[in-house]
Amino acid sequence: MPEFRQDPVSGRWAILAPERGRRPTDFHVPPEEVEKGRCPLCPGNEDLTPPEVLVLGRPQGNPPNSPGWRVRVVPNKYPALHPGKPHEPSGILYEKLPGAGIHEVIVETPEHGKSLHQFSLEELALVWEAYRLRYTALEEDPRWHYVMIFKNRGARAGASLSHDHSQLLALPLVPETVRIEMERSQSYHRETGSCLFCRLVEEEARGPRKLYENAHFLAFLAYAPRQPLETWIVPKSHASDFREDLEETVSDLGEILRRVLSALETTLPGLPYNLILHTAPLRTPPLPYYHWHIEIIPCLTKIAGFEWGTGIYIVPLLPEEAAAFLRDTSHET
Amino acid sequence: MPEFRQDPVSGRWAILAPERGRRPTDFHVPPEEVEKGRCPLCPGNEDLTPPEVLVLGRPQGNPPNSPGWRVRVVPNKYPALHPGKPHEPSGILYEKLPGAGIHEVIVETPEHGKSLHQFSLEELALVWEAYRLRYTALEEDPRWHYVMIFKNRGARAGASLSHDHSQLLALPLVPETVRIEMERSQSYHRETGSCLFCRLVEEEARGPRKLYENAHFLAFLAYAPRQPLETWIVPKSHASDFREDLEETVSDLGEILRRVLSALETTLPGLPYNLILHTAPLRTPPLPYYHWHIEIIPCLTKIAGFEWGTGIYIVPLLPEEAAAFLRDTSHET
Repeated sequence: MPEFRQDPVSGRWAILAPERGRRPTDFHVPPEEVEKGRCPLCPGNEDLTPPEVLVLGRPQGNPPNSPGWRVRVVPNKYPALHPGKPHEPSGILYEKLPGAGIHEVIVETPEHGKSLHQFSLEELALVWEAYRLRYTALEEDPRWHYVMIFKNRGARAGASLSHDHSQLLALPLVPETVRIEMERSQSYHRETGSCLFCRLVEEEARGPRKLYENAHFLAFLAYAPRQPLETWIVPKSHASDFREDLEETVSDLGEILRRVLSALETTLPGLPYNLILHTAPLRTPPLPYYHWHIEIIPCLTKIAGFEWGTGIYIVPLLPEEAAAFLRDTSHET
Repeated sequence: MPEFRQDPVSGRWAILAPERGRRPTDFHVPPEEVEKGRCPLCPGNEDLTPPEVLVLGRPQGNPPNSPGWRVRVVPNKYPALHPGKPHEPSGILYEKLPGAGIHEVIVETPEHGKSLHQFSLEELALVWEAYRLRYTALEEDPRWHYVMIFKNRGARAGASLSHDHSQLLALPLVPETVRIEMERSQSYHRETGSCLFCRLVEEEARGPRKLYENAHFLAFLAYAPRQPLETWIVPKSHASDFREDLEETVSDLGEILRRVLSALETTLPGLPYNLILHTAPLRTPPLPYYHWHIEIIPCLTKIAGFEWGTGIYIVPLLPEEAAAFLRDTSHET
């Protein structure tokens, strides 16, 4: 029986149509084409990227933009945004803003072909350290109101390079998706006195969509997903900014992230996905109503006319069934 | 220079990043796989679909579900929605609705391989007549609050059959995308006394994004698109329901639709696209602030982490440049 479900965070509706669906392993992922030429993200090819803005792990004494690094952050060679002027003045009908922004690439590992789920906890901690440092540096620039950190894995999920990396965009506005999430969680807090996400953690920890938990984090399948197997990772303690308590919790974060990604990879080898960090806008004080988290959205079903026209996603797999399947998946942790 | 643009209708922002882009013809469309077996939408194979709910053009005396039709409407064999019960009761945190609905397929032509841009004006008028008749029939059922009519063309755009067809879903709710569009145009009307779409028609008719116009319709490239070459077709006279004046204007509608689709096809042969009919919810009186229209969204760039996280689409082609290119395209009309 299909059903409509409303995501409690965004207010977005989904249609769960499980009788159209199959087992999670039935979503076939075709192999991707191999890139030709030198990989610009590999050690030794540092000359193929713009000069680095951050490196972690390079031995002291080695020159900048040389090998030996463990995580490297460089400006995107083909940035979606950079300082600039609008094409024509903004009007009542046509709003516009200059396309100013910062677009960076976080090279997560020197090892080409090593994927996030295969990282050691120490390697994962270095990636989060790079996020934290760049985020904090960009926060100082009053032009930016939001820093969006995300990862596209696989060509179908929008990655133009196969070497594992994440991206970061500093934006001159708070994006609509974040604004709606903030507004809805604020209104929930006003009505109930609770943080919406703290309530979600409470419910999901004992519910059929639960995947894993450890001392600091809970992973569960999204109630009203946009794609089959959509998974959220939420910190158990309330924090609106992902940098809060990160030092004490990063090992648990790496552990649960690796378990989730390993289960997905075991189920669908080479699965293309998008990973999105949701955190409060820059320079906001700790908020009682907002709660940072990670959303992992596999790239399995098409966005078609119905989705464009309605904003409703038709998903052919129940998250409750997907969670049971993934929990049963054997995978190294 | 990239820029942020806000769509005046939805409020959705786009990033226009033309320096990342190419000419419209550079968006390569790979050929799609050929289907095997009998096409369930071809004449003679009527037994492969559920029994028809409407046919146009079949000679009197021919039995139901036999060949001879020109447009045929059948229930979707794999419906996303049908009457049913929710899986568990709805709560404060988790909203849900039974997945009740109607999902139909409008087979636009008996000719396999004939595409909408190759239709005669009479053939296009028959398709719109089928839309109108099914829409009006479904409006009588008080369970449905919205009927979404759309077309997915090409496998990449979500079509599971290559024989040209559109789809229709009757929904027990007004979708978020429509609700936002209605709210924003109502608020514009309250503030200015004008219909937002009437103002758009006025501006776009003399602007750089204009593509074509005839007595009753204007076609232009979207100001803040979600995909390169996104094109809107808007009636020049105010009407909130697509059935208003349809009899007098359907020939002009077919003419402009065919010109737009031909220009897109000439530019990118086999282009996958989604076509979405935006119209007022069922059983609403004529609204002074809402204005029906068509949105054509090509399927050319990926939805990735940034789009999921922000609701902002990065589009590598300026609509002003795309419009100039499409206007120059030679194509039969």
